[in-house]
Amino acid sequence: MALIVHKYGGTSMGSTERIRNVAKRVAKWARAGHQMVVVPSAMSGETNRLLGLAKELSPAATTPELQRELDMIASTGEQVSVGLLAIALQAEGMQAVSYTGWQVPILTDDSYTKARIQSIDDKRVRADLEAGKVVIITGFQGIDDNGHITTLGRGGSDTSAVAVAAAMKADECLIYTDVDGVYTTDPRIVAEARRLHTISFEEMLEMASLGSKVLQIRSVEFAGKYRVPLRVLSSFTPWDIDINEEAKSGTLITFEEDEKMEQAVVSGIAFNRDEAKVSLLGVPDKPGIAYQILGPVADANIDVDVIIQNVGHDGKTDFSFTVHRNDFQRTLDLLKSEVLPKAGGATISGDAKICKVSIVGIGMRSHVGVASKMFSALSDEGINIQMITTSEIKTSVVIDEKYMELAVRALHKAFDLDQPAA
Amino acid sequence: MALIVHKYGGTSMGSTERIRNVAKRVAKWARAGHQMVVVPSAMSGETNRLLGLAKELSPAATTPELQRELDMIASTGEQVSVGLLAIALQAEGMQAVSYTGWQVPILTDDSYTKARIQSIDDKRVRADLEAGKVVIITGFQGIDDNGHITTLGRGGSDTSAVAVAAAMKADECLIYTDVDGVYTTDPRIVAEARRLHTISFEEMLEMASLGSKVLQIRSVEFAGKYRVPLRVLSSFTPWDIDINEEAKSGTLITFEEDEKMEQAVVSGIAFNRDEAKVSLLGVPDKPGIAYQILGPVADANIDVDVIIQNVGHDGKTDFSFTVHRNDFQRTLDLLKSEVLPKAGGATISGDAKICKVSIVGIGMRSHVGVASKMFSALSDEGINIQMITTSEIKTSVVIDEKYMELAVRALHKAFDLDQPAA
Repeated sequence: MALIVHKYGGTSMGSTERIRNVAKRVAKWARAGHQMVVVPSAMSGETNRLLGLAKELSPAATTPELQRELDMIASTGEQVSVGLLAIALQAEGMQAVSYTGWQVPILTDDSYTKARIQSIDDKRVRADLEAGKVVIITGFQGIDDNGHITTLGRGGSDTSAVAVAAAMKADECLIYTDVDGVYTTDPRIVAEARRLHTISFEEMLEMASLGSKVLQIRSVEFAGKYRVPLRVLSSFTPWDIDINEEAKSGTLITFEEDEKMEQAVVSGIAFNRDEAKVSLLGVPDKPGIAYQILGPVADANIDVDVIIQNVGHDGKTDFSFTVHRNDFQRTLDLLKSEVLPKAGGATISGDAKICKVSIVGIGMRSHVGVASKMFSALSDEGINIQMITTSEIKTSVVIDEKYMELAVRALHKAFDLDQPAA
Repeated sequence: MALIVHKYGGTSMGSTERIRNVAKRVAKWARAGHQMVVVPSAMSGETNRLLGLAKELSPAATTPELQRELDMIASTGEQVSVGLLAIALQAEGMQAVSYTGWQVPILTDDSYTKARIQSIDDKRVRADLEAGKVVIITGFQGIDDNGHITTLGRGGSDTSAVAVAAAMKADECLIYTDVDGVYTTDPRIVAEARRLHTISFEEMLEMASLGSKVLQIRSVEFAGKYRVPLRVLSSFTPWDIDINEEAKSGTLITFEEDEKMEQAVVSGIAFNRDEAKVSLLGVPDKPGIAYQILGPVADANIDVDVIIQNVGHDGKTDFSFTVHRNDFQRTLDLLKSEVLPKAGGATISGDAKICKVSIVGIGMRSHVGVASKMFSALSDEGINIQMITTSEIKTSVVIDEKYMELAVRALHKAFDLDQPAA
């Protein structure tokens, strides 16, 4: 007997028919003798519908008071889901009970619309599990110290599921989603893309943060911090497939580096075309210049991804970074009005038609020449590299957006990702 | 400065445009210097939509476990409403904060789907009022001792508003609805029906329980118990009408019997065509027979309204009662299978085509001959009376359904209800 957490996304909960299938699948796991905790998302479209109503009343949500009310409203989507799933499980003959975030309780800070989980009290849930009940907990939400409802931001239900699994010391957290696992790259771009049976936590973190949208990045961080075994698998397999087969399907995110399986040097190719590049050329090469440039950007709540500053010469240096494309124009305006006047003689250039392509692999730690193999593969295709940034287990390049598919395919082939793992 | 509670029904909250109008009306009251608490219903149609989803998953909701989940689901309708109204008020430049039943908290018993309010802690709300905020509280719901969400049953938001007004010792509780007050009878049936400026609590209770659907009966009971001044008024007047005019509009439900205004003998005519009549003829006239008949009916959760047992003769008596029409066939079946076999020689008759018409008036206490005037008016129209039941301030008759409109019009005229009060 194991303690298992299932998480179902909004598509899986999208209709009463689908909720009934989720209930049958959960019931199958419970009947196999497992203690089951389920974290469902809101029915697909519901969160957008609710926030749309709020937006009609107040187009710009900025004050904490208003964001508190958004959380009040948006949290109801998951509350409906847990109640419906409990009823569907009861109709299957199971004992089931649902809880909201505040009932568990899942304590968060008070950053409305993007709260962070601080602690989870597992007493109530554990008592129900021991009484033989399936426990269903709202994703995406919690309660702060003063008894206000908070939400964790988009994709927060993944984080809720992992956090509950961590608090309960669950044996595994299964994230059911509309893809059947983590792939070496997006199969829509590379037909030979292969599902990974396992991926290390660090690699998953890089894949998630680099735009592979399978898992919300905060949930991966949480899983890493608390070493929650996490599996991504498809909610579109028939609910009555053999449970042993199901338990081995999808992709397992592991924390053991000494896995028996030979580790590939590169596990996957990630890409992101939502970014834009901004460069300041010829800025004074002096202490504090990075803060002088990025301080106003951060103050304007603009997220910066890649940041590159090369060694300077003649007292000048070039400084580049990428932002989300939606923030591109705002960033340029901000730099022109607030930074350029103080950065004697610097000029700005920007390009929204770029993309970032990355190779990710824990094996890069112990293998030299991985980055140069990447550059060579891109060079062979005549692709010019505009920016390079590296971390211990990934190398990213910024290139012209029009080469993205070509680059991803070339790299997928160069690192033999279309071959089954040894 | 007064402390005022406003309650808005689902129609008034039916769209963001209407919610904006509610916000403007509440803001007008707040700007006039009043401390404002607002209890809105769910947006019209929302509760039915939510319970419809639940019904698709489990057609028959019977167990407490299932009803707990129904409350989990249905309570979200009001939660969305309070959040939206708070946002609309903030957009009007007001300070506003919303609370769910559990946040106040409004403590109830654990009778899911039909819980009763036990206590309301007003500390949190009062602190916000004193800080100059408009406080918006979910209707229809509370929390039980074990932290489960409960709902108060259909129309429960009226009860929530009155209970909050009672707990806060509010100066007045204004129930905004889609009619502009309490009428002498239904204006759709009697064109001359007149709006009452005031009605006594006891009369309102009879009118509410007799099928006049302006106010939920439990809210009237609550208002009576805690002497909450209650006003029913229209939410369809323009939000910007003069506040002094608005404050005197609608119908005020009073508790002072020594009102200056001359009390009419009969204040209104109520009617109800949702009932069916069941008679057991020739049952043994012995102690315990009423329980023997109605015990199984109560056990089957069938509500009984009028009950009449006349004096018996020859050791036999006749026993009649009315039930909701939806329960008519079930009641007949039940009596045949469980009661008749033990009620030697009795026979059953039933009639679903009946209606109940009542005259209501606190003046009946001190005026003789009111009932006989009623019977005479009906007799003049050739209407046969099937059953009669009386209380201190009302007399009801059961008649053939087809005479209902005729009877209501005749009584309205006979008691001079189309004349303005003296």
